[in-house]
This record gives sequence, C-alpha cells and structure tokens, in this order.
Amino acid sequence: MVLANAYHLYLRPGTDIIEKMGGLHRFMAWDRAILTDSGGYQIFSLARLREVSDEGVVFRSHIDGSQHTITPELAIQIQESLGADIIMVLDECPSYQDNMEKVAESMERTHKWAERCQKAQTRRDQALFAIVQGGVFPELRRRSASYLTSLEFPGYAIGGLSLGEPRALTQAMVEETVALLPENKPRYLMGVGSPEEIVDSVARGIDMFDSALPTRVARNGALFTWQGRRNIRNAAFSQAEDPIEPDCDCYTCRNFSAAYLHHLFRCEELLAYRLATIHNLSFMNSLMRKIRDAIINGTFNSFRDSFSARYQPTDEKLRIAQKQKWLDSRSHGKIREG
Amino acid sequence: MVLANAYHLYLRPGTDIIEKMGGLHRFMAWDRAILTDSGGYQIFSLARLREVSDEGVVFRSHIDGSQHTITPELAIQIQESLGADIIMVLDECPSYQDNMEKVAESMERTHKWAERCQKAQTRRDQALFAIVQGGVFPELRRRSASYLTSLEFPGYAIGGLSLGEPRALTQAMVEETVALLPENKPRYLMGVGSPEEIVDSVARGIDMFDSALPTRVARNGALFTWQGRRNIRNAAFSQAEDPIEPDCDCYTCRNFSAAYLHHLFRCEELLAYRLATIHNLSFMNSLMRKIRDAIINGTFNSFRDSFSARYQPTDEKLRIAQKQKWLDSRSHGKIREG
Repeated sequence: MVLANAYHLYLRPGTDIIEKMGGLHRFMAWDRAILTDSGGYQIFSLARLREVSDEGVVFRSHIDGSQHTITPELAIQIQESLGADIIMVLDECPSYQDNMEKVAESMERTHKWAERCQKAQTRRDQALFAIVQGGVFPELRRRSASYLTSLEFPGYAIGGLSLGEPRALTQAMVEETVALLPENKPRYLMGVGSPEEIVDSVARGIDMFDSALPTRVARNGALFTWQGRRNIRNAAFSQAEDPIEPDCDCYTCRNFSAAYLHHLFRCEELLAYRLATIHNLSFMNSLMRKIRDAIINGTFNSFRDSFSARYQPTDEKLRIAQKQKWLDSRSHGKIREG
Repeated sequence: MVLANAYHLYLRPGTDIIEKMGGLHRFMAWDRAILTDSGGYQIFSLARLREVSDEGVVFRSHIDGSQHTITPELAIQIQESLGADIIMVLDECPSYQDNMEKVAESMERTHKWAERCQKAQTRRDQALFAIVQGGVFPELRRRSASYLTSLEFPGYAIGGLSLGEPRALTQAMVEETVALLPENKPRYLMGVGSPEEIVDSVARGIDMFDSALPTRVARNGALFTWQGRRNIRNAAFSQAEDPIEPDCDCYTCRNFSAAYLHHLFRCEELLAYRLATIHNLSFMNSLMRKIRDAIINGTFNSFRDSFSARYQPTDEKLRIAQKQKWLDSRSHGKIREG
C-alpha cells in the first residue's frame, strides 16, 4: 500500500488535475492499494497562520502562502476525488507539549469532525478510518477510543504520537488505546516508524503503520540491516565487497557491493538515493513478512526476542534530532535534505 | 554501451578499489559493453593548475586539490585495471580559440602519446582507440588522421570538437576528418550530442557517439520528442493527459502522463529525474535504431529528410549557454544543476 497526502496533493498539483487525469491510481500508475491522509497532520505541522474553529481550519500554504479553508466535508470531498482505497477523517493534531485541557478541547473537536466526515462520505468503495487523539493523557486516549468506536468506522488509527515524545511514552499510549479498539478491524499507528518500534507496536496489537523514516533516512545514507542502521557514507564501507545486508535479496543487495553504494553517495549520484530507498523499503517489507509469518505460526514472541537480540536500535536523541531537522527543512519549503 | 571516465574513477573511488571489486563491469553490475575515456578531456576541462610536457600532465584534482601526474603509460594502466571493452589514448585537448601553432604543437604531442599508449598496452582483450585532434584547422585534422591511421588502431575517435564552436564548424571538421578514417573500423565522434547533430554526423560517416546531453538536459526537464525538445516544467503540460511523446514505448511514456512528470518536476521529486532520463535515453536508442534500419534498407537519406522536416533543433546559442553553465558548475565542484 502507498500512502499519499491530501494536503500536498490539494495544494499541488491540485485535486481538479488529478481527478481529470482519472484519479490518483492512474495519475501515478499504481494499481494496488492507496491510503490518503486527510492532511490534518500536515496542516498542523507544515502550514502557517492556522486558525482553528469548530467549523474547520484556515491556513496558509507552506509553498506559496496562499490562504485555504479545510472543513471535514471538504477533506472528504478532496479524498473522494483522489480516489484512494482508504481515506482518513480530518483531525486536529495538538503539540505533545500542550496541557491536558487544550488537548481535551482539540480531541472533542476531532470527534465532531469525525462524525461530520462520516456523514459527508458519498462513495461507498472507500474505507473511512477514524483517528484516535488524546495526546499523552491515558484518560483522554481512552475517551477518544471509546467515543470513536461507538461510531462504527471500518478501521481505526492512532494519531498524535511519534511527535518527539520519548519512545516509552509512545508505547504506553499505544497500549492504552489499542486495548479499546475492535480486534476485527484494522488498527493503524500513524507516523511510526523504525523497525524496533514496529516490532514493539505489533506486540501491543497494531496492524498497520506508515512512516517516511525508511525513505528519508535512505536518502541520507542510513541503511537497515538486521543488526541495526548503518551509515553507508562511513569510510569503513569504502572497500566492503559484500552488499550492505548479505541476508537481503533486494535488487540493491543482489547486484551491488556496499563499496559501490558508498561511492555513489560520496559522488552524490542520484542512483545512490534510489538504491538505498529500494533496500530500506525491501527491508521493511521483509520485516513485515517475518512478523506476519511468526503470528500465523504462533511464534511471534520468540521472533520478537531474536529480533531484539540482534537489532541495535538507533539512539533515541539522534533519531528525534534527525526528525526535527527534517520537519524544520520541510516547513521552510525545502523538502529534501539529502 | 556505457561510457565511464578514467579521470573521475581514478580520483574517486580510486582505481585500486575498483580493481579489488573485480573491475568496472562487476562494480557497477553492468555486463554489457563499457568504454572508458582516458581522462584527457577532463584533465583539460575540469582539473586545475595543469602543466603539460611531452612526458605527461601534472594537475590538481577538481575535488580536493590533490596533485597528480598522468602519463600515457599510466592512462593505459588505469584503464587496464578498470577493464572496459574499449579504452582511449591519452590526448591533449586545446581550447577551440587557440591559434594554429599552439593546436599543431598539442596535436604532435597527442600523436606521440598515442604511440606510447599503443606500446604500453598489455591486455589484448581491450580495443584501444586513437583520438584525432587538430582543432578547427582542416590541414591539421588531415595530418592527424593520416598519421594515426598509419599506426593501425582498431578504432578512431574524433576529439576536440563540440567545445563551444558553431555547429557548422563542427560538421565541417567531421567531414574533413572522417574521409581519411578507414571505413571498416569504428569512427567515433566524441562529445556529440543532440539528435540533430547525430543525424548530420551519421550522414558524414560517423558510427559512434557519446554525450552527457540526453541525461543532463533530462534532469533539467528537457525531454526529446520527434518534434524537438520540450520543457516539461512549462505550464502547458500541467494538464496534459498524453505522455510527453505518444509515439514512444519507453517505461515513462507507457505509464505516465506529461502532467504527472510536470508535477514531479514542480515538486522536485527524485523520481522526476529518473523518469525523464529513462525517456531521453530511450529516445536516443530509438533514434539510433531507426538510423541503423534506414542504412540497412538503403533509405537513410529519406529518413534524414523526414527527421529534419519534423525535428525543430534547439536554438544554438541556448544550447552553448546551457553547456557552459554545466561546465562551470562542474569545475566548481557542483556536479549537478537540477
């Protein structure tokens, strides 16, 4: 499944153009599943001069400063014309430093917006997922999950996490929330993440994830191995004849030595970013396949133990600093750091 | 056939590393033909603080300023360890504004270097091509061609053209030179070029070409069509449902509208550069296939007429200015302009 973003596509190239081109699947020649996020997260992290009311949110584009108003109804209309298989409600994403009162107010608004999204939906071939909010407050998380499940959505996402809070807090909130979501519907943790967080979250009951991390860090030369992330720019790789992960059967690892990748990154060849991205996405696919197989075979706990015994997680401070750098560069109109 | 460059590879990652990795074919996982240029052209266009003597050339790397000496013997040794299928003699490339005396002196040196390269060659599985020099002086071109053909190389290149001189002068020099090169050996025009120049040069007897133009202009959004180059960034393409060239069967044109490519370029998505490069290289392959078929069928002249009737050449001043901008950016260590 590919995730696309209603905020970005609405601003550029514009929903009308994608609709004219036959919808998002045809526009990008991808005939498998697509999920579109409503753009709530992007409006609250990228756009400028936001004014939120119960009606909706007024913001200025991070690209050209133009002013736009998005309501729950418009968020659905945009996503219906994009035509993804799974679409998301419009939600408000508070900062994780906000106090409980502010987060509660924002959560209530997200609940009302979720109901309006549900009513605004006209296409029945798209699955509309609700988004549980409530910040880092267990009580709010429980209220949000209870309320939204009463509305009977076909799937539930957990939003407002992985925003810079400590990983242990992310996992605590996941645990609080997931317990209240129906087991027979997809439970989707938004914006997560790293291999180690995915394994931990699956252990708590999460089924779906999305994250720019594997592609973003690939473009910076950080490649996944079963021992942890490796920076291919490191001089140690200049003469490495093996692929970056000898146990990987992706196009990159089947064909190229780590030394070749190292060389491409040093020369800033565009092929570097492509080969690294192919590897990291293949690694994530392989990880998810192993997880599914282990669950089916009833061996998930031992898989998790053996994964954790080998995989050295990325230093948490480094990870948060890298993500912040990326967010900063995006909100200044510079999408890419590589 | 892929062209690689001994100058670049010698400086980075270093010949020793490529040799250790099993040679250039294996290093870049390309099992078809490779040609390496000796680096003569790069030393005279990219490197700094050059001192040329009959012995060889001393220069400083454009990357880190380190000092190096390349002799004809070393140029062969480097290319033997890289292991390409076709290798080139070390040549001196004068500026096209140099006077006849200077160009003649440089040509004589290139001749001596060619002989030394021939003697230095130890591998018999690589075809060593000579390079005809002589600037824009017909008399020198004839002398260079006569002298080098007397040495019996397996193939002959024409160097020192497409350096900013008017296109008519390039073609006049090609015509002078090619007439003296044996018809039963490959005749290779270095650094050319655009579709229109290739058609004109084939008409004069050229068999082989190399140029960064198709990939370089692709990264700037200039895409070949049978009507001429089109800039995909142009607003006219924002709603274009057809591929950039409906008569093209490349991966890009089979799958994507011009509007999608336009969108990717506007968003500076890395995929833009890849899809545009695939298209332009496919276009060049298709052009060469049509040329070969027409020659075999004895219809090359009518092919050339119908090509020229449709294809609008790029404005010559624009073309030279773009190339100069690229050369400038490279010699300042900024490889890519996109």
